[in-house]
Amino acid sequence: MCHKVSISVFKIYFGILFLFSTSLFAQTNSKEATWIWYPGDFEIWLSNKMQVRRTEREAVFPPLWKYYSPYALVTFQTEVDFPEADDIKIVSEGPFQLLVDGKQIYGQPKSITIPKGKHKISLKVYNQEVLPAIFIDGKYIKSNEDWMVTNEDKLWIDEAGKAQQSGTPWVFVGSWNFNTPNNKPSEFKLETEPWAAKGAEKTENGELIDFGKETFGYIKIHGLKGKGKLALYYGESKEEALDTAKCETLDHLYFDGNQSKTYTHNGSKAFRYVQVQKEASVQYDSISMLYEYLPLEYRGAFKSSDKLLNEIWDVSAYTMHLTTREFFIDGIKRDRWVWSGDAYQSYLMNYYLFFDSASVERTLLALRGKEPVTAHVNTIMDYSLYWFVGIYDYYLYTGDTKFIETFYPRMKTLMEYCLGRRNKNGFLEPLEGDWVFIDWADGLPKTGEVSFEQMLLARSLEAMAISAKIADETADEKQYQKLAQDLKEQLFEVFWDQDKNVMKHQRIDGEMQDIVTRYANMFGIFFNYFDEEQKQSVKNKVLLNDDILEITTPYMRFYELEALCALGEQEFVLDEIRDYWGGMLKEGATSFWEKYDPKQTGEEHLTMYGRPYGKSLCHAWGASPIYLFGKYYLGVQPITAGYETYTIEPNLGGLKWMEGKVPTPKGNIELYISSKEMNIKTISGEGTLIIHSKSRPKTNLGAIMQVDKNKYQLVLEANKEYQIQYKAL
Amino acid sequence: MCHKVSISVFKIYFGILFLFSTSLFAQTNSKEATWIWYPGDFEIWLSNKMQVRRTEREAVFPPLWKYYSPYALVTFQTEVDFPEADDIKIVSEGPFQLLVDGKQIYGQPKSITIPKGKHKISLKVYNQEVLPAIFIDGKYIKSNEDWMVTNEDKLWIDEAGKAQQSGTPWVFVGSWNFNTPNNKPSEFKLETEPWAAKGAEKTENGELIDFGKETFGYIKIHGLKGKGKLALYYGESKEEALDTAKCETLDHLYFDGNQSKTYTHNGSKAFRYVQVQKEASVQYDSISMLYEYLPLEYRGAFKSSDKLLNEIWDVSAYTMHLTTREFFIDGIKRDRWVWSGDAYQSYLMNYYLFFDSASVERTLLALRGKEPVTAHVNTIMDYSLYWFVGIYDYYLYTGDTKFIETFYPRMKTLMEYCLGRRNKNGFLEPLEGDWVFIDWADGLPKTGEVSFEQMLLARSLEAMAISAKIADETADEKQYQKLAQDLKEQLFEVFWDQDKNVMKHQRIDGEMQDIVTRYANMFGIFFNYFDEEQKQSVKNKVLLNDDILEITTPYMRFYELEALCALGEQEFVLDEIRDYWGGMLKEGATSFWEKYDPKQTGEEHLTMYGRPYGKSLCHAWGASPIYLFGKYYLGVQPITAGYETYTIEPNLGGLKWMEGKVPTPKGNIELYISSKEMNIKTISGEGTLIIHSKSRPKTNLGAIMQVDKNKYQLVLEANKEYQIQYKAL
Repeated sequence: MCHKVSISVFKIYFGILFLFSTSLFAQTNSKEATWIWYPGDFEIWLSNKMQVRRTEREAVFPPLWKYYSPYALVTFQTEVDFPEADDIKIVSEGPFQLLVDGKQIYGQPKSITIPKGKHKISLKVYNQEVLPAIFIDGKYIKSNEDWMVTNEDKLWIDEAGKAQQSGTPWVFVGSWNFNTPNNKPSEFKLETEPWAAKGAEKTENGELIDFGKETFGYIKIHGLKGKGKLALYYGESKEEALDTAKCETLDHLYFDGNQSKTYTHNGSKAFRYVQVQKEASVQYDSISMLYEYLPLEYRGAFKSSDKLLNEIWDVSAYTMHLTTREFFIDGIKRDRWVWSGDAYQSYLMNYYLFFDSASVERTLLALRGKEPVTAHVNTIMDYSLYWFVGIYDYYLYTGDTKFIETFYPRMKTLMEYCLGRRNKNGFLEPLEGDWVFIDWADGLPKTGEVSFEQMLLARSLEAMAISAKIADETADEKQYQKLAQDLKEQLFEVFWDQDKNVMKHQRIDGEMQDIVTRYANMFGIFFNYFDEEQKQSVKNKVLLNDDILEITTPYMRFYELEALCALGEQEFVLDEIRDYWGGMLKEGATSFWEKYDPKQTGEEHLTMYGRPYGKSLCHAWGASPIYLFGKYYLGVQPITAGYETYTIEPNLGGLKWMEGKVPTPKGNIELYISSKEMNIKTISGEGTLIIHSKSRPKTNLGAIMQVDKNKYQLVLEANKEYQIQYKAL
Repeated sequence: MCHKVSISVFKIYFGILFLFSTSLFAQTNSKEATWIWYPGDFEIWLSNKMQVRRTEREAVFPPLWKYYSPYALVTFQTEVDFPEADDIKIVSEGPFQLLVDGKQIYGQPKSITIPKGKHKISLKVYNQEVLPAIFIDGKYIKSNEDWMVTNEDKLWIDEAGKAQQSGTPWVFVGSWNFNTPNNKPSEFKLETEPWAAKGAEKTENGELIDFGKETFGYIKIHGLKGKGKLALYYGESKEEALDTAKCETLDHLYFDGNQSKTYTHNGSKAFRYVQVQKEASVQYDSISMLYEYLPLEYRGAFKSSDKLLNEIWDVSAYTMHLTTREFFIDGIKRDRWVWSGDAYQSYLMNYYLFFDSASVERTLLALRGKEPVTAHVNTIMDYSLYWFVGIYDYYLYTGDTKFIETFYPRMKTLMEYCLGRRNKNGFLEPLEGDWVFIDWADGLPKTGEVSFEQMLLARSLEAMAISAKIADETADEKQYQKLAQDLKEQLFEVFWDQDKNVMKHQRIDGEMQDIVTRYANMFGIFFNYFDEEQKQSVKNKVLLNDDILEITTPYMRFYELEALCALGEQEFVLDEIRDYWGGMLKEGATSFWEKYDPKQTGEEHLTMYGRPYGKSLCHAWGASPIYLFGKYYLGVQPITAGYETYTIEPNLGGLKWMEGKVPTPKGNIELYISSKEMNIKTISGEGTLIIHSKSRPKTNLGAIMQVDKNKYQLVLEANKEYQIQYKAL
């Protein structure tokens, strides 16, 4: 049983013709050549590799969830109309079969001349070790995002010798920025740059190097001589680096005397300090490091009349940059895994700092994996749901539809998995293998029907409805709209306490539990699921009520402060930020921590999970001021996808002045705000400026409109500079 | 979000305890250590690698269907009660995390001492490039088939610090015969042995080497000197090796002068002849080869009074051995893919030659892949169904339940895929992406509802019912029994022609087509779906009726001859075998061909698919006499699983005498049969000998019973030697 396919290479074009009657295979000579692969596969491969790099005192520590793999065999295809003969270069990761107009080209040519006219180019590439990827470069044909790819071309020949191809699942290729033949996906590395040590001091058995602040990278040893053992003990704190027995990361090296003078370690670590201990038989002159980072532009900016807040923003931005790597990760010292709940907060901060959509896409794809779905994302129920909400926000901020069009099928199968795990009341209730996280808080109930999970599911269903529309799945759109609507109604019917006017936390076996927590109540505010009266009630009876179970993690603190800002409590929140983040700075933080308890002192700040240095001193969720300052003080946020329309509602929260930039797909919005004036440089798209002023503001452009007592509105036109005089309340 | 898991390594045992309350984790010090992996993953990895090795004139030629991948991250686990402290060796393919009683052991130790007492050993292994595999060897613990493995351990810690593990899909590991630490799965190679050339002759531009018969392996060049190009042109025939422009396989080599004196090519090929052409600047003394093979014992045997038949059996056995490699493949020269329909015939032949269950399992697993199912096996509807029927036979012949217990979930998902593609009448009718093959025959109708496909589905459903019972899935068993019963009834209602007493071929849009073909009619006979009257009618009106579309492929000839044997036409079939297989031998065949047409002459025999050497001269399905001789002449077949009960119904088909062996899981049944006597050495298990004799036979053991005119029966007890006198009809 063989010949079908051997024939097929001569007959393939019969089968494929109809395929190209679609517009999918656009002519591609407009764009530059780049490496392409099956969409999502590079991200899966890279995240597998990165997450297993976690070590604990030299033991590897892989994730507890399922790893997916790239497709080892895929077929890339495009059609180009060549105005003249074209010499094209072919570079492939993996052996390939090349077909031109369905005819097999013998061998595996590095280059080939394609004659004038319309031609179909197909490459079937095999790569089990990494992932199949190609780079094609000619004058008229270039591998780029317009190519299609499939993991099962299903091309066969019937007994009449005619090729048959049907049911082939073609999708658009994936790519990033591998734009030269030598810049291979399989060899991806973050950028590095040399950093000198800021200081060094003798220790009992060696030397302690200080790099001045939290960093991430590869230790370099200079002037290396001799033969013997050398050990590196890393520390985010001095105490950790000095504690050789308990520091979380370390390296034992051996040199045989034949090494070169300069040694660079091949494993990157997170640290500020490193203690070097060695045998006398080995000597070196000095220690430096290669700082490893993802090259990103800081598009967002914030400055104000309060130096402390400025420093908090700067350290937040650095913390965010350190944790924005191959993917958005949480802590750089220890975990290095991709967690959906943590990443969701990084997405939001990213929109006010880098606005790097590629990092959001990579992280979403790494978290989702592919088919079949056999567990929740990270095995956590709420983390599957944050994944959908992340796409909801991604579309709102970026306006990008291609990502959703391409991956809608993966959204749908994950949602089917979630919906398939609802109980008879239509609520999510944990089944075997489901982990309900919500937050770390002593005595937080998580069994039965928890209102918080239902609220996340409702927003997730709204995300599905929007995405179904984008993917042109009308029937799905209607279905998800209805599911979302019904669930929201049921959520309020069951969990909203009509007397107390707050949302209850939990129902078990139909028994409503008399528990109110902050979670569903604060999400209800910025999800805009509450009316004004409900919001005020929740604010007073829950958020500002010390009898309600307190939030102790910066993770949920993020949402608590957001909810308070959404309720106009900017001044209150600013004081919270000064105390909490300012407190870490007083303790000498050079990046923000996984957890901070003002009541603790000295080494207590380093401990967590029963380990003396268990706490991460550089944690993504510590950087939330970036998001709060941009969205709720500078007050910029999109109203429709990709900032087509947006609002600016500045709030000084008691500051004399503030200035900054908020990145958008259409450029940066620039603002200067004082209690007397607002200077705003707009972008394309229609903005609405909301001004709270004691008197009617004056503007150099457009017409101010009063909308309420002390509340005015100005329509902002594209790419203009506005100067407004007003009197802050 | 990190600490859960960092804690978990100290708490894991809470979560796992209950797990070991099952008996799955049996003490394992009884068996020898072997490399273990996630079941099916080695087979998927190896088949990916092997099938892409197909080349056509130096171009790679991968399959048209989907490739699956091994899980890159898996957790192996077992529990052992150590009577004393044990030093265990740990060898792993890929970095690993070792946990003893849920506590992480730092580093990646090559050996470790486990204290006395009951202990849980877990290794989480990562290997994206090949597949995770481990070899553990101690006095009391050894990696073997009793270990369990999962691709998602789902182990997490709740806020109370308690480990939670639920929904973890534990399965038994896979293994083959990698029984030493150095014998790594990733380095698997078939065995090789040196073969000398049988002859050499000058050609116009080089030298033609003849190895005497069809073979498979690596060319070796001896006494190599100088620098320049050397080309190898392979041929299964002299003509092919001499035709440098059209031979199907070739290699272009270049030597830079620094090569060693002996060169061995790294690509194995199938050939009898190789022509060597070279530049004058390169010299060599001689050419030999390394014959590559799967080491298997020929347990089956057949000899008779007819020398021609003996030679046919020997060449069939050699053909079968050449095509029994990493997997059962069809043709060794060209295709090298694993095709379910072809493999199905190899399974059957294997039961009468090697009885190598591992080869059947490897092939079934390679064909099935894993989840999700998005197309038919090899994209062919009938090939999905042969996969199920292959398991039906596998259980019948081997009695092995573990394979079915382990892979029942994959059987079920594939069956769900098939059932999901039935039309409104409950019949399989091709949907988009489905290829209906049946056979190569000009004008064979394949659209609409084809009776042949429904009959295969019915037998597949019977296979599912039996397997569900073995897997202890009682509800499934009932469901599949009913589905099979209903489908069989409907098959006869719709396709059985009451007047003509034959099975019709096809119905389109409810319109029965007036077509009768051999396919469903012959399968109905050896599936035993027909009653005696129906069988006789089918025999005369279809099988022996020249007006019915003739079968021209050895592929379907296999079943046609089997049906005739099942109807007692052994003498007729023997003449067919003498003509057909004898005809190939007359043409000089040293292995049996993909196709043979007695009407052709000379080079016509080499052509196929419009290519002068397109035909495979060593094709698995050419070896069917092995199966026919064993099952229908020596007459041995199992009645219940694993030869617990079996029948022997010898049929000389006109031969003076025959003798042979038929392998079973309980040893070989040995037989000598002449027209006067039968000498039979039995195995454990209860046999029934059926004797056709003119007079009442005499036996040295047991009691002969008459069951019909000239038909007698003798119960065969375990491990006895019977001598019987009788008078053949």
